[in-house]
Order: sequence, then C-alpha cells, then structure tokens
Amino acid sequence: MRAPRIDNLQYANWSEKIFRQMRDGGVDAVHVTIAYHENFRETVLNFEQWNRWFEQFPDLIMKGLTAEDVTRAQETNRTAIFFGFQNPSPIEDDIGLVEIVHTLGARFMQLTYNNQSLLATGCYEAEDTGITRMGRQVIKEMNRVGLVVDMSHSGDRSTIEAAEISDRPIAITHANPAVWQAALRNKSDKVIRAVTERGGMLGFSLYPHHLKAGSECTLESFCEMIAQSAEKFGVETLGLGSDLCQDQPDSVVEWMRVGRWSKEMDYGEGSAAAPGFPPMPSWFQDNRDFGNIESGLRAVGFSQTETADLMGGNWHRFYAANFGPVSEDRAG
Amino acid sequence: MRAPRIDNLQYANWSEKIFRQMRDGGVDAVHVTIAYHENFRETVLNFEQWNRWFEQFPDLIMKGLTAEDVTRAQETNRTAIFFGFQNPSPIEDDIGLVEIVHTLGARFMQLTYNNQSLLATGCYEAEDTGITRMGRQVIKEMNRVGLVVDMSHSGDRSTIEAAEISDRPIAITHANPAVWQAALRNKSDKVIRAVTERGGMLGFSLYPHHLKAGSECTLESFCEMIAQSAEKFGVETLGLGSDLCQDQPDSVVEWMRVGRWSKEMDYGEGSAAAPGFPPMPSWFQDNRDFGNIESGLRAVGFSQTETADLMGGNWHRFYAANFGPVSEDRAG
Repeated sequence: MRAPRIDNLQYANWSEKIFRQMRDGGVDAVHVTIAYHENFRETVLNFEQWNRWFEQFPDLIMKGLTAEDVTRAQETNRTAIFFGFQNPSPIEDDIGLVEIVHTLGARFMQLTYNNQSLLATGCYEAEDTGITRMGRQVIKEMNRVGLVVDMSHSGDRSTIEAAEISDRPIAITHANPAVWQAALRNKSDKVIRAVTERGGMLGFSLYPHHLKAGSECTLESFCEMIAQSAEKFGVETLGLGSDLCQDQPDSVVEWMRVGRWSKEMDYGEGSAAAPGFPPMPSWFQDNRDFGNIESGLRAVGFSQTETADLMGGNWHRFYAANFGPVSEDRAG
Repeated sequence: MRAPRIDNLQYANWSEKIFRQMRDGGVDAVHVTIAYHENFRETVLNFEQWNRWFEQFPDLIMKGLTAEDVTRAQETNRTAIFFGFQNPSPIEDDIGLVEIVHTLGARFMQLTYNNQSLLATGCYEAEDTGITRMGRQVIKEMNRVGLVVDMSHSGDRSTIEAAEISDRPIAITHANPAVWQAALRNKSDKVIRAVTERGGMLGFSLYPHHLKAGSECTLESFCEMIAQSAEKFGVETLGLGSDLCQDQPDSVVEWMRVGRWSKEMDYGEGSAAAPGFPPMPSWFQDNRDFGNIESGLRAVGFSQTETADLMGGNWHRFYAANFGPVSEDRAG
C-alpha cells in the first residue's frame, strides 16, 4: 500500500461537494476542526453533525480513530475524518472530559486559541506565563488517553513548556517558520525545534496570512521553505496542515476570532480593510490541488520517498504512535 | 470457556468492597445503571466517575462494550461493566445523543422510568398512550446503533408497542411475572410474551418489592417461579437482573422515585411507613451469593446447561447480537 495522503488541518464549510473533492484529490485522511469556542455540549452537537454526514455519505467519508483507519479508508476509497479542537473550551474546567472527548473521537486539542486559556497562553497575549496548574494536569491526562497536544495558536513559552512537560510528542498542526514569513502565528526556529526534537510534528499551513507574499505566494517559494525546514528539523518531522477554510462565509472568521469573548471586533491576522478570508494561492484552491504540492516538492529536490512522507507518511506514523493509551502502544 | 455469569442490572453505591465481592462471586459482567433522572451533562459526569474507577481498579473491573469483552473479563479475572439508563433523560430532546451515548458506552436505555417520558408511558401513569412520535424515531435510531430498548419501568401498552415497533429484540432487564407476585412493576404474561417471542429477554429481579413474600421470599419459591417461566416463555429468553442496590442510603431511593419532577414525596413501591430500601432476602445479600441461585436452579430441576444459560449464557448471546450496528452483526 502506498503512503497515505493526509491533510492535518481543515475547517471547511462541509458539503458533499467538498467530500467529493477530497476523493478527487486522493486525500486519504483529514484532521478537521470541530470546535473553536464551543463548550462541551455545543461540541457534542458538532460530533452529532458529523455522525449524520458519516450516515449520509458512507461511500465518501468514514470516522477516523486510529492509524489503521487511514489504511482502511485507502482500501475502501474513502477519506478518514479525524477530529480536533482549536481551543480547550470543549473540556470546560473538567479534566474528566479529556477522556470523554477522546472516546467520542477527538485526537488533537490546542491548549489555546490566540488568547489565554485555563491551560496556557495564546500567541496574541502581551505576556506568556506558560503552562498553568490545570494545564499540567490536562497534558498528563491527554498523554494517558492519547489526545495530542496542539500548540499552533499558543505563545512561544507555552509551546516550549508544553513540549517539555508532555511525556509524548506534541504537534504544531498548522503554521510555518517565522524566518520565512514573520506572521505572529508562524513559529521561530527555537519553538519548532523544541517540538520536533522530541518527536513532534510541524504541519505546513496554506492559509495566505501564513505565506510569504500572502495569496501571491508561489508554489516554488512554499516548497523551498519546506526544503529548508527539512534541513533544519529533519524531513521526518514535517507534514501538511493546510488550514483550508473552503466555502466559509465571513461570519465564520468572525466566530473564530471573537467567539463570545469580546463585544468588539478583533481582526486577528486580517485588518479592518480586509476582515474576511483571503483568497487561496492559485496552486492550492481546494482538496483537488494536493498533486501540485507533491510535484512542487519533487521539483525542489525531495526524493519520491521523502515526498510521500511529507504528503502523509509522517503524519500516519505519528497517528500510529500517539492516538491511543501508552500501554496499547507498548503492546502493539 | 465456561458460560459467563452475568447480572443484568445493579445500582449499588460502588466501592472497592463491592468490586471485590463481584470477583468473589465469580460475576463476569454486570449491567450497571448510570442514570435515573440525569440530563446529558450529568450523565457524562457519571461516565467520568466510572472512568476513574476503571483507572483505580484495573485488576477488578473493566469497561464492557461488546460480548467479547465479557470473555476478555473472564480470561483476565475481572468483571466487565456495561452501562445503562433507567430513563431517556440523558438524551434530552436530541435524537443525535442516541449515537453519542452509545459511543460513550451505553448499551441499554429504558424508554420510561415510571412516569410519562418524551418516548413512552411509564408503569405508574393512569393511562398508557403507547409509543410517542419521538419514541418511534428513537427506537429506530437505537436499533441502528445497537442500544437496547429496556421496558422494565414502562406501561403494558407501551411495552408491547415497543416490542412490535423495534426491528431488534428488546429487554425487560429487571422484573418478575405478575402471576407470581402482583406488583405494579411486575409484568403480565402477555407483556412478557410480546417481548420474548421476538427474541427479547426477561431478567429476574431480586428487589424485595418484586418478590413473593418480599424480603421473606424463599430461594425455592424464586427458582420455582423461574421454572414456570421457562415452561411458558422458553429457558433461552431468561436471565438475571438482580436490581441490587447495595449500600445505598435512603436518599438515593428518593432520587430514584422523585428526581426533580415533584416537590412532593412519592413512595413508589414503598410506603410512608417503609420508605427506604427493604432488606434483601437472606440467600441474596450481595454479589457473593450468585452461587445460591445457581444451586437453587439445579434443585428445581434445571440441567447444568440450562442453569449456565440462565446464570449468564443467555444474556451473553443477547449482548453478541444486539450491542453493535446491524451491519456488523451480519458481517460477524
């Protein structure tokens, strides 16, 4: 079986059209965001909505819980959908919910979304005080059950501390190196190294605010950035996390940025002049365009094996090691 | 492997002591009630509490999801714990929660607890109007995911209609024939037949209010009643559902009976003079006494095979057929 093609972050306005595009693009697994600011009960409604889609489109998509499910999706020509949260709001202030959401299917959880949370500091706060008392307990519990710590929207200190505190590898599912594009959401080499040197992963983002030259970023520039990252951090620590937000209305970007925490607008990576979703680069419009990235990686000199690892093989191995209790890993 | 010993209903004040008594009594699986009047969020807290017990006592108990888990419990000298609700309050008015609670581990759900619910009529209402509009939809969804309809506390018409509407066998997990003891919670032959002639099961209760002569009921009388039931309904349709409420304070029987639906006391099967839990029969005090029932069944003439079926083999086959999606049954 060929290495699977995995996109480790999307938050589209899901529809049969997009599920068919996943199939057309040969995407075997996608990690989808199902909570930004939702509390536990609201997040359960989102699990319910996905249950309905699994029931409605059994020939296109299936629920993904383990690395084996990616293989099963490949064998049955479907896309395995893995769930994640971009904020710890679904677990509220209740550590017992960590195992509950894992049982329901969550496999990644960000400790923060831009702001200070109960667990850590977000990347937009003026001061980063690191992992909180509850954060230490929750990381331990996430390690126990096999829910991956994701620090994509966290501050530098919090991210480095999370990598150090966690007994298992953590992830930055969707961001790029700040040396390539100095966005607040992109990560310094020091932060990326803290994650990757402990077996963690970085997923490269295609969200224009994270790209050099934004929507005008070239495929070559993006792939050259990956080549430089592979030299620094090792090709085995890298994958994709496109951050594709296809077909979303602007009201959704407002929900992502402001949730219910403010009565005032916050433009996040945008601005008052450009508040909505920026246009995607011409060479990555939707799930059908992963072939362009694969060709681009070959063009900058990655071997066929390295390219397959970057397109999904690395995430697949990461899933196999980190989505279950530690004891099962040892037995398996 | 010998047939497992299964008690298909308990609601004790759980403790290490009781878990050890389960092991001493050779009990391989227990269906435990985790909700009477709890809403969804409160029920999740009860799942969480059990997760803590599974973590604390891994050598005594394990979470049960499938019939194979009973065998795994036998092989590892533990008791598999299966979850159920005595009321549909955990799914609130949201049919999507049926699959969610099944994913979390629920395997039985009563459509009513004494009172009218959103789904059906309870056995204490003056008039039984049968399965409601939502009830029909929920039964279909329970059939789809493999959550067993339990009608122990429902009215006769609702129970017969549920048996007819359900595409899969249903259960009366804990009650006795009314011809033996005319309690409101015990069931007429007509009701028992409607359930058992469609592959459903009856679990015999040891709750004194359901027993002839109450706490003074003899083992012989109890086992003779089982023998008569086997002649009428077939030995393969019968098992145990002891309704053991060990170590519970009287406040819990009040919660069971009144929940939050009334400001006035309701004595249920008790009375103002005897409001609490009645004493259990001398020959069934707790989980260590299942051997007495096994001996009693042999003494009234059941063969060794029939006795093993009554003590758990029948429930085990029922679990295997009814705890997963229909498609898996067909594949399995």
